[in-house]
Amino acid sequence: MRISGFKASAVSAGLRAKSRLDLGLIVADGPVAAAGVFTTNTVKAAPVLWSRECLAGGKVRAILANSGRANASTGPQGRKAASESARFLARELGCETREILLASTGVIGEQLNLEAMSRAMPDLVAKLEADGLPDVAQAILTTDTKPKMAEGQGEIEGHAFRVAGIAKGAGMIAPNMATMLCFILTDAAVEPGLLQTILTRAVESTFNRITVDGDTSTNDTLLVLASGLAGFDTLTRDDSPGREEFERVLTAVMSDLAAMIVADAEGATKLVKVVVAGAEDGEQAKAAAMVIANSPLVKTALFGEDPNWGRLMMALGRSPARFDPEKVDILFDRTLLVQNGQRAGIEAEAAAVMKQPEFTIELNLKNGTGRAEVLTCDFSYDYVKINADYRS
Amino acid sequence: MRISGFKASAVSAGLRAKSRLDLGLIVADGPVAAAGVFTTNTVKAAPVLWSRECLAGGKVRAILANSGRANASTGPQGRKAASESARFLARELGCETREILLASTGVIGEQLNLEAMSRAMPDLVAKLEADGLPDVAQAILTTDTKPKMAEGQGEIEGHAFRVAGIAKGAGMIAPNMATMLCFILTDAAVEPGLLQTILTRAVESTFNRITVDGDTSTNDTLLVLASGLAGFDTLTRDDSPGREEFERVLTAVMSDLAAMIVADAEGATKLVKVVVAGAEDGEQAKAAAMVIANSPLVKTALFGEDPNWGRLMMALGRSPARFDPEKVDILFDRTLLVQNGQRAGIEAEAAAVMKQPEFTIELNLKNGTGRAEVLTCDFSYDYVKINADYRS
Repeated sequence: MRISGFKASAVSAGLRAKSRLDLGLIVADGPVAAAGVFTTNTVKAAPVLWSRECLAGGKVRAILANSGRANASTGPQGRKAASESARFLARELGCETREILLASTGVIGEQLNLEAMSRAMPDLVAKLEADGLPDVAQAILTTDTKPKMAEGQGEIEGHAFRVAGIAKGAGMIAPNMATMLCFILTDAAVEPGLLQTILTRAVESTFNRITVDGDTSTNDTLLVLASGLAGFDTLTRDDSPGREEFERVLTAVMSDLAAMIVADAEGATKLVKVVVAGAEDGEQAKAAAMVIANSPLVKTALFGEDPNWGRLMMALGRSPARFDPEKVDILFDRTLLVQNGQRAGIEAEAAAVMKQPEFTIELNLKNGTGRAEVLTCDFSYDYVKINADYRS
Repeated sequence: MRISGFKASAVSAGLRAKSRLDLGLIVADGPVAAAGVFTTNTVKAAPVLWSRECLAGGKVRAILANSGRANASTGPQGRKAASESARFLARELGCETREILLASTGVIGEQLNLEAMSRAMPDLVAKLEADGLPDVAQAILTTDTKPKMAEGQGEIEGHAFRVAGIAKGAGMIAPNMATMLCFILTDAAVEPGLLQTILTRAVESTFNRITVDGDTSTNDTLLVLASGLAGFDTLTRDDSPGREEFERVLTAVMSDLAAMIVADAEGATKLVKVVVAGAEDGEQAKAAAMVIANSPLVKTALFGEDPNWGRLMMALGRSPARFDPEKVDILFDRTLLVQNGQRAGIEAEAAAVMKQPEFTIELNLKNGTGRAEVLTCDFSYDYVKINADYRS
């Protein structure tokens, strides 16, 4: 998890009830290229508004991330706390305030404890080290049961490069824990505008293809920082040699992290890939896969290990995809249960597939070449328990 | 529950595992005006396809409804079973096959037991009586914990008229139980085209303003039959005197039935009215109220009696409604918890409101005059249990 050009650290700043790592820092040796993707929710947390503006500058120095409080729905006071925390850290690091990206996760509507954060910062900076990233992965967790880290590497013009990422999901894509944070570091050399283009594409096939409960957060933040120390010439255009290789490795790391988020969803016991094939186009396929992957009735049937294909037909039917119900095939892994809209296989065989911790459900509409995959999980007693009890 | 011009009955035809009423019949003394609204799901059950065609004729004689099997995703054999059951009943009643409306609820993908249904029909017809409607209300239940019946009355041109309705919801708006069925009888005299116009409007403010889990069924069916025996001149146009009075009573009966469906939702412990006020227009208000009312995170917080307003802000924020997050007020009944996007009230007071079995959550966006109300329920352990275990 070591990427040349970066150091990281985490401390327990006392931002949460229990004493544990709750404040993390990633610092680049100098200004580096950066790109980001943020929540589309109309209600955006103060750190989201802040970081989005910082990225307009193209080059950044650091990411400061806390758990415990989301700093969302906190008004002018919350925005001031965000900018003050950046100002304080910039002084410690000797850089511009606008070079500090911010991310928060935790309860909405509570003000940050700026004093505790400021008090912890000298220690946070003193602890920076090349191997510090796993500590940051720990500091940003909320109801996640384990830290999420992934790595990849590739080669461009004979120079090896590395990509390392950490993420937290809180299990569900859940606002109250202020959801999905993901920070990715690379020593690849990529011009900021191209980095943004590549990141946006990679998100579409990774984080935008997972779902837990359809809820989006006020704090979703995905940041990529590129130090450029790998040694190859900076990638500047989509047709730059090496762009494809870099995008491949970045996408793979993001794909791994996305799968870890679904697998560690609150209360989840199953990781299920929903495939819709044979749709009129890719857009209809994705929309249909998302409706199926988000249906509470489908998700409770996954928990019950019940190959309840009627619910799959129902969810498909309320999606915007066009199809003839009497042409639909449904497979559980390689078991064909439904052919041309009616049961053709043996339910016990499909039920056996569902007893596995991971499996695929594929619906083929036989109405075109559109295809999409979405990762989801089941809906368990524990999902209700965790979300009914949280905060109390 | 007696409406002049109609008789009803129910029997145990052996269509379900347990012996209980499972086949119901409503018969008009002669051909009557009828109107209907059906599921928008692309996957439509055979009885839905059948009844939709029958209504094109404008006049009908009877409704035959069964529980146990939805007759959905059953292919040509299922469509044949539907038409055969209508043919059999038409012979018993001495009417046209196309005058028999059909509705089914139960498991998707299983064929109807046509033989058992046919065998039960003579008994079903023999049992017809003026007070039979409550038996039909019983026969159509699936996981509902109680039958749902509502009545209303009004006066047009000095003639009293009555409206009586029965419904089943299976709690959630759930496809596997083949969802919402509702049959309404009236002795009002209304021309079929106008009856359809009035019904469509009434649905928009009643059944289209309830939600349990956002899933729609393959079998949703709402039928209204009007015998015209009340004595006043047939209503033919929107500006006919008495049209408004009839629509008021019909809408009230439908509103009562809709509320009963949400209150008896699977596992539900709370009946919650979500109000969005101050939206740019009514459409945005309804869309926002629906997103909030369907959010699993909001619904688990309702179950936990947690005034977790951050989740309300989040759900509002991912709706299509336009608003300034720092203008939003949130009330729990009359308790103002959030003012201008930040906590202003005492959470314990909002929590006390949530301990009631019924309460209102109102979000005021202060961005216009658009307003909408949606009825929803909470998401409990039992919701997961019922839906993970169903069928097994």
